[in-house]
Amino acid sequence: MKISCSKSSLMNGINIVSKAVSSKSAMTNLQCILIESSLSEIKLIANDIEIGIETIIEGNISEAGKIAIDAKMINDIVRRLPESEILIETNSKNQAHIKCERSEFYIPFTSGEDFNYLPEVSKDKSISLSQLTLRDVIQKTIFSISDQENTKIMTGELFEVNGNELKVISLDGHRISIRKVTLKESYDNMKVIVPGKVLNEITKIINGGAEDNIDLFITDKHILFEFNNTKVVSRLLEGEFYKIDQMITNDYETKFSVNKKEFMSCIDRASLFIKESDKKPIIMNIENSGIYMKIDSSFGSMNEEIEINKEGKDIKIGFNPKFLMDALRVIDDENVDIYMINPKSPCYIRDKDNTYIYLILPVSIAA
Amino acid sequence: MKISCSKSSLMNGINIVSKAVSSKSAMTNLQCILIESSLSEIKLIANDIEIGIETIIEGNISEAGKIAIDAKMINDIVRRLPESEILIETNSKNQAHIKCERSEFYIPFTSGEDFNYLPEVSKDKSISLSQLTLRDVIQKTIFSISDQENTKIMTGELFEVNGNELKVISLDGHRISIRKVTLKESYDNMKVIVPGKVLNEITKIINGGAEDNIDLFITDKHILFEFNNTKVVSRLLEGEFYKIDQMITNDYETKFSVNKKEFMSCIDRASLFIKESDKKPIIMNIENSGIYMKIDSSFGSMNEEIEINKEGKDIKIGFNPKFLMDALRVIDDENVDIYMINPKSPCYIRDKDNTYIYLILPVSIAA
Repeated sequence: MKISCSKSSLMNGINIVSKAVSSKSAMTNLQCILIESSLSEIKLIANDIEIGIETIIEGNISEAGKIAIDAKMINDIVRRLPESEILIETNSKNQAHIKCERSEFYIPFTSGEDFNYLPEVSKDKSISLSQLTLRDVIQKTIFSISDQENTKIMTGELFEVNGNELKVISLDGHRISIRKVTLKESYDNMKVIVPGKVLNEITKIINGGAEDNIDLFITDKHILFEFNNTKVVSRLLEGEFYKIDQMITNDYETKFSVNKKEFMSCIDRASLFIKESDKKPIIMNIENSGIYMKIDSSFGSMNEEIEINKEGKDIKIGFNPKFLMDALRVIDDENVDIYMINPKSPCYIRDKDNTYIYLILPVSIAA
Repeated sequence: MKISCSKSSLMNGINIVSKAVSSKSAMTNLQCILIESSLSEIKLIANDIEIGIETIIEGNISEAGKIAIDAKMINDIVRRLPESEILIETNSKNQAHIKCERSEFYIPFTSGEDFNYLPEVSKDKSISLSQLTLRDVIQKTIFSISDQENTKIMTGELFEVNGNELKVISLDGHRISIRKVTLKESYDNMKVIVPGKVLNEITKIINGGAEDNIDLFITDKHILFEFNNTKVVSRLLEGEFYKIDQMITNDYETKFSVNKKEFMSCIDRASLFIKESDKKPIIMNIENSGIYMKIDSSFGSMNEEIEINKEGKDIKIGFNPKFLMDALRVIDDENVDIYMINPKSPCYIRDKDNTYIYLILPVSIAA
């Protein structure tokens, strides 16, 4: 193999596929990047079984071939090279010779014969949306997936397509996050559970905006994300997702609107008195036109009042402040509407069109 | 006590004195800030015995008094308050009542009766320089103090005043860093060893520029830094400092000038092949008009050539790359002059006027 490419193009490609390099495994191929060059294109591939990524980089090909090379080593070398042309050439000693200006490196490679290529994914079923929208919808729901491997389904997110509507849902036993987006076209109905780890990596790799599209191809077993010159493939999580519609209600006894920033600052101050050694909910008294927040702990006490616009009954209710903060943080609206039923039922933070719904279970408090 | 002040003024004061709050100690006063208010000024004090800091903040005093309050707690609270006026008032339950807009906190305090005030430091001997210069001279030498507590003197820096010259020196057994600055006035000769920890904190607290002065008052036992409304006091390290002049020579057999940025990039690339499990020096062949750098390890090999301007003999010499990088990083010149004698003698990076001298011991290499 003998190829050359610019530093920026190689570095960019390495950064993308490195998201599918295993940091732990001792099986060497899982820690490697495969550089595969035909006579027409240079492809970088990495695959740690959970997630597989390939990307095509621009460059000149003098001699086709393929090599598997330690991902960390090539990353470390290329990152330190000047912004210039990089030559990669194999020699008869099973070394890759990397040359850039006056720097020359020789590092070992393997033939990549037993390298795991990405599985073939049929392109029958697909949806298309902007990279910006996909990243946004993931970032605004991913925080409430579960990290408990024993409830495998909860470690992923439900992607549900109905006509031209995409709904993304995550839940962890204490809360549910739902985001809806309208697609430009209508598609066949689909319902798949995508591993959270893959979605996290996807948000780091896609850097396009509202004008740059990404295609999602879906089969029974796999999801393929295709964008720019890059493919990301992941297995889907198997099983039936929770029946969310049955958990959600539009009924409420108390509804109020509150300034999001003020509410967050107040919760943040109250959280100060919640420590590992003295874990308590924050208690809100929602009365008339105010939330009266009060916390008492062995470290001290705090109380504060926030103005709200309220309809319906007064209520006294307790929450884990983290769950409220996680949801409020990803809402872009200046004011949020919050709906409550009673101190034992979930509360809902949602907008009028239900483009977002954050359901949070309260913590029981002494009456 | 009953005082009020702006959030920014209180936050700034807390940030300054917090540098002298012990994070480890279980003795409560060392983890506290003393807020002491006379009828004319509000003073914050912290003292962890190694370093003591007091600063005066602006505010309104309704009732004089003093309280010792947990430093982390008051820091956490004030940081989360809105940019507004903060009221602090003690009540009869030994609680400090902190109020800002609609937020109210109650946290316990102690009387501060046994609080360690800063020691009195006589102001007979002093020097004055700009805050910018002091910060600069510390940051450009502090990296080569030793972290070995058994050679206590090496954990500090020598501050030596001769007439209008201040020389700051640190060393750790492998290298020596020397910076000289010219003071605006002449002073009595002085020679003291200041603990590195204190100097590190000083660089974080002083934020003034070339126009803002700082005064250093020196006694047999202590050094007092006085600037803006703040005093920092530290004990000096006791003992005789090394006779640096006897270790330094102007003789050389090889002298070369090299572009600093290119030299650093090349060392950085070579360092890639030096890992904990296979520690090797980088070897430089300085011949004719180039440095030929070469490194061979079990992970691969690298070689590179850099152009230089050389006088004198060719030499082959090995270095720990970290020591070269640490020195080069803090030199502002585009090109640096490097002087060598033989592969076993120290090399010197210095400018023509000796405003900086970085001495680095080579690592012995197989001939």
